[in-house]
Amino acid sequence: MKAHVYVMPKRTVLDPQGQTIHSALKKMQYKGICEVRQGKYFQIVLEPGLEVSAAREEVERIAREVLTNPVIEEFSYRLED
Amino acid sequence: MKAHVYVMPKRTVLDPQGQTIHSALKKMQYKGICEVRQGKYFQIVLEPGLEVSAAREEVERIAREVLTNPVIEEFSYRLED
Repeated sequence: MKAHVYVMPKRTVLDPQGQTIHSALKKMQYKGICEVRQGKYFQIVLEPGLEVSAAREEVERIAREVLTNPVIEEFSYRLED
Repeated sequence: MKAHVYVMPKRTVLDPQGQTIHSALKKMQYKGICEVRQGKYFQIVLEPGLEVSAAREEVERIAREVLTNPVIEEFSYRLED
């Protein structure tokens, strides 16, 4: 089983990386872009045979305790067989 | 319309960030993890009224030319209404 974890800066937090990319894209004449936000993406391969509920719990715990800074970031995740 | 772009190190390329997280998780007694890989995640908000085919083309171009280093990274993306 594989978990995909997405960590993004919170809406209320400035995202200087995203803003830099956005202004660079504008200068480079890319059209039709309103906003860019940059986050982190983790692929976690879980041991085979792990139950979905256990996997969900473990991935949530890792995302919350290790991968995300709760002051400025929030996470979401999905599991894939 | 919103585009989600995922940029990952290629399979053939070492991923020191992912390896570091993996070994940290092991030391911290998290169980059931076989592999961790870290990449980047971009949310791009596109102007309303853009056609899907045009959006697809633009997002692919931005991902290929700006967000990804083709020597060591590969990207995937999805569009969301």
